[in-house]
Amino acid sequence: MSLLIAIRGWSPDQWVERFSKAAHPRPVFDARAAFDPAAIRYAAVWKPEPGLLARLPNLRAIFNLGAGVDALIGDPTLPDVPLCRIVNADLTARMTEYVVLQCLMYLRQVEPYRRLQSERRWQPIDQPAATDVRVGIMGMGVLGQDAAEVLVRLGFRVAGWSRSPKAVAGVETFAGEEGLAPFLARTDILVVLLPLTPETRGILNRDLFRRLARDGVLGGPFLVNAGRGGLQVEADILAALDDGTLKAASLDVFETEPLPASSPLWAHPGVIITPHVAADSTPEALVEGILANIALHEREGRLNDVVDRRTGY
Amino acid sequence: MSLLIAIRGWSPDQWVERFSKAAHPRPVFDARAAFDPAAIRYAAVWKPEPGLLARLPNLRAIFNLGAGVDALIGDPTLPDVPLCRIVNADLTARMTEYVVLQCLMYLRQVEPYRRLQSERRWQPIDQPAATDVRVGIMGMGVLGQDAAEVLVRLGFRVAGWSRSPKAVAGVETFAGEEGLAPFLARTDILVVLLPLTPETRGILNRDLFRRLARDGVLGGPFLVNAGRGGLQVEADILAALDDGTLKAASLDVFETEPLPASSPLWAHPGVIITPHVAADSTPEALVEGILANIALHEREGRLNDVVDRRTGY
Repeated sequence: MSLLIAIRGWSPDQWVERFSKAAHPRPVFDARAAFDPAAIRYAAVWKPEPGLLARLPNLRAIFNLGAGVDALIGDPTLPDVPLCRIVNADLTARMTEYVVLQCLMYLRQVEPYRRLQSERRWQPIDQPAATDVRVGIMGMGVLGQDAAEVLVRLGFRVAGWSRSPKAVAGVETFAGEEGLAPFLARTDILVVLLPLTPETRGILNRDLFRRLARDGVLGGPFLVNAGRGGLQVEADILAALDDGTLKAASLDVFETEPLPASSPLWAHPGVIITPHVAADSTPEALVEGILANIALHEREGRLNDVVDRRTGY
Repeated sequence: MSLLIAIRGWSPDQWVERFSKAAHPRPVFDARAAFDPAAIRYAAVWKPEPGLLARLPNLRAIFNLGAGVDALIGDPTLPDVPLCRIVNADLTARMTEYVVLQCLMYLRQVEPYRRLQSERRWQPIDQPAATDVRVGIMGMGVLGQDAAEVLVRLGFRVAGWSRSPKAVAGVETFAGEEGLAPFLARTDILVVLLPLTPETRGILNRDLFRRLARDGVLGGPFLVNAGRGGLQVEADILAALDDGTLKAASLDVFETEPLPASSPLWAHPGVIITPHVAADSTPEALVEGILANIALHEREGRLNDVVDRRTGY
């Protein structure tokens, strides 16, 4: 094999260094420098320059360095070779941390207590039990199922919604268009881990927010989006927060990233912003997995975690 | 049986109502009203008036409505009958929520991201994995063990310290005076769930803070005290935060409660304050358990969750 590293938006240096060390003595090329396109068999990429992959005549597989492949699939020049996404215990653990943290912050009323502290006021607030709080997870793949498992352990009432039916221990599951309304109607904290596809683009809009539970013991509903920015309509989130259709939102992803400094989301008191770091990938955790997948392909002609381009995940 | 409810500091009304309903047709008396001291067999109490219990000649057992019994044991007039504390799945779940929330807030750098948000700055911060963060739990009873289990599931490196040796799956355990130094030296986030006893009073002091790990990947150490306020020396916490011996502290309990408005803890940027609500008891969750314990005593002459007055827990 010879491997091309094509990364934009992040610093490629540590990735190139780590891939080079782990793949040694096989060659690893940096897309920023000169290389022979015909020599490349595999490419590990993050938001590569459109058209770059089409210029590699002997490319056998593409490895995306994050969980979401929407940007790649949206490139009409993407060559017709297997596209693999990252399914990795470290990434899964980090996403679960983020989701559990947001749910606990809403359950345990971190913001109201912070305000009381700033006023030097000792005032216990009625504390519902987790067993009375309904979390609904949209997207029940590896990430959704792992987060659900910890939320169930903590006592939350967890439901999951996915395109096709899934069975998950301790989780009430809903599927498809007909499952969406009852799923939303029983959800106080909506956690979104969907892939971005033509069907899911803009799904987090005013109409959907209106269908969430309005009788929650925490006075929600709350939105947690750690999927993709393209899932959400930010103008609708702001309007829903302002008129009480949503109580608060934790957003790790945005329509435009970096989120422009002019966005009113930054200063909205109901919004918790993180800069697309919910499940940040690190070279340590991912390089070995990709090289193992390449070795599997060379040895047996098959690959793990191949994306279905029809569904987009 | 006839049961006396003696509660100060909280509103007794919902407790009296719920005990009356659940114990019906047996009599339940409110200590604020008139009652015949000789008729009382059992007492459910929270910070009762000192001397009150000594005036009940036929008292058979006392049930404390919270986890900590230090205030009762400190009353020299406390009659020599079994004293039971609350060991309850709801209380345990709430404490685990609080502990996991604080650990995740430090791991996922909630405060630094909040500051960046207030400045409208999109700036990812290096994110260590939970597997590189060492949580140390002082007090490995029911509460400590339950919190440890969830922290282990999330990937944290968890150790426990207790007076007597304990074996807990996935947790490195230390015990006694000789185990304290190595336990502290490997701890980035110190979680304190100790009972308040003559040996533990003031244990959270400058000397102990100096022995915590100084090489943590999060730049800690961090203190989380959800045990008892009497465990901590607040002047030492403030000094340690100011000179960097501690990076931050989550405090649910205080030397004086309510925490006086004049305390500098309220406004310290490194302190997260909650008003002794980490594992708030509710009548719903506790009444049935106490009545079941009384029934056990009447039927078989024994009681669950009796406090050892020598150790104080």
